[in-house]
Amino acid sequence: MLRVLNKSIRANRCFHTGSIVMGKKVAVVLSGCGVYDGTEVHEASACLVHLSRAGAEVKMFAPDIEQMHSINHISGEVMEGGRNVLVESARIGRGKVEPLTLLNEPDYDALVIPGGFGAAKNLSSWAVDNVDCDVNNEVEKTIKDFHSNRKPIGLTCIAPVLAAKCLPGVEVTLGRAEGDDWPYGGTVGAVQQCGAVHVEKDVTECHVDTNMRVVTTPAYMCNTSVHRVFDGIGVMVDKLLKLC
Amino acid sequence: MLRVLNKSIRANRCFHTGSIVMGKKVAVVLSGCGVYDGTEVHEASACLVHLSRAGAEVKMFAPDIEQMHSINHISGEVMEGGRNVLVESARIGRGKVEPLTLLNEPDYDALVIPGGFGAAKNLSSWAVDNVDCDVNNEVEKTIKDFHSNRKPIGLTCIAPVLAAKCLPGVEVTLGRAEGDDWPYGGTVGAVQQCGAVHVEKDVTECHVDTNMRVVTTPAYMCNTSVHRVFDGIGVMVDKLLKLC
Repeated sequence: MLRVLNKSIRANRCFHTGSIVMGKKVAVVLSGCGVYDGTEVHEASACLVHLSRAGAEVKMFAPDIEQMHSINHISGEVMEGGRNVLVESARIGRGKVEPLTLLNEPDYDALVIPGGFGAAKNLSSWAVDNVDCDVNNEVEKTIKDFHSNRKPIGLTCIAPVLAAKCLPGVEVTLGRAEGDDWPYGGTVGAVQQCGAVHVEKDVTECHVDTNMRVVTTPAYMCNTSVHRVFDGIGVMVDKLLKLC
Repeated sequence: MLRVLNKSIRANRCFHTGSIVMGKKVAVVLSGCGVYDGTEVHEASACLVHLSRAGAEVKMFAPDIEQMHSINHISGEVMEGGRNVLVESARIGRGKVEPLTLLNEPDYDALVIPGGFGAAKNLSSWAVDNVDCDVNNEVEKTIKDFHSNRKPIGLTCIAPVLAAKCLPGVEVTLGRAEGDDWPYGGTVGAVQQCGAVHVEKDVTECHVDTNMRVVTTPAYMCNTSVHRVFDGIGVMVDKLLKLC
């Protein structure tokens, strides 16, 4: 009987949490697998490790659409052959990723979107159109649904541009606008053009917009060691869950 | 001048470490990107985070060969179109992965091989041939070179089968042979058939073969939460670096 029960629990449990009961329910939206055309894998993994340790119950989602393109991560060149955002995201999710159309906001306490160029190529057209970009309709609806129900949203690296486009006036951090370790510092001016308020933070910190309930951390906007990215995301997850 | 120096340091630095000087030099061998046909991304990320925090200087390598196949991680089916192990590994390495032929063992203090089916499909034929498998020639040479120079080797999840094949009589852990949370328990008997000594451990532990200097942790051999996999790998990395 215990064996049957255990199997039943296992069949129902989500990606990684050991805590089935009492944990906050968090939806994580991915954009592929790999920094240059999808979700940055270490940012995603850090989000999942910290959420898991906090006892959160996580489900992952991704748009069931073609990637903007597929990048050879050795050469930086575009590769032949299309890849699907949902299918590639499942490499991070160990198979447990559902189409974003199935994300039912009332079932969750918080939303997390890790960075990587996928946020700027697949979840939006930021990489091409910058401040004039479109945000994927499902992604925009998801962000606005969580926001209008006062549920916190956590974003890492470049993903705060999605909040800047969808939530006018939001406060975000992308790290610093200038400095040798901040190769994408120009993004700071761009989100300000969108009407967002930028707050400078180091990679091991996060910024909390307590009014809009948006929590952001620079992650790989900074050229730094992976454990510092991991730690900054830990701070973001902690603040996010406290806002639930 | 400081600016020039900083740029020079950055140009030379490896994937993720903030510690250029004094850190142990560790070679990490990858086998693709994604649990079902490559390196398990969370195991790789955990190895890199813990090595980074310990100040290790990491370089990543992978064989420049075609993957055995590419798996759709949603459906579990084989996908059309070949993928290259080195190119896909670079999704984990953020572009900083070199062909395994360039791994010069004298340059390193330790070797790490994370798990995922890539270890059993691309680094060896274990997934098809089990105890009668072949190990990729470059991988076998790498393991034997580190071993014969008394340098420690860290392996997670299914990757200990590579040690079982290359280093007769080695002690390894693959977790437990039986139990609801150990879906791959049959591998224990298989490595014993290879002449390896199996030592049962929980997912947050590792086993150290102090004679052969091989350190192993079960990781995703266990059906468990990602932060417990992360912690077990942390213990493995700590023991590994102490053996350097």
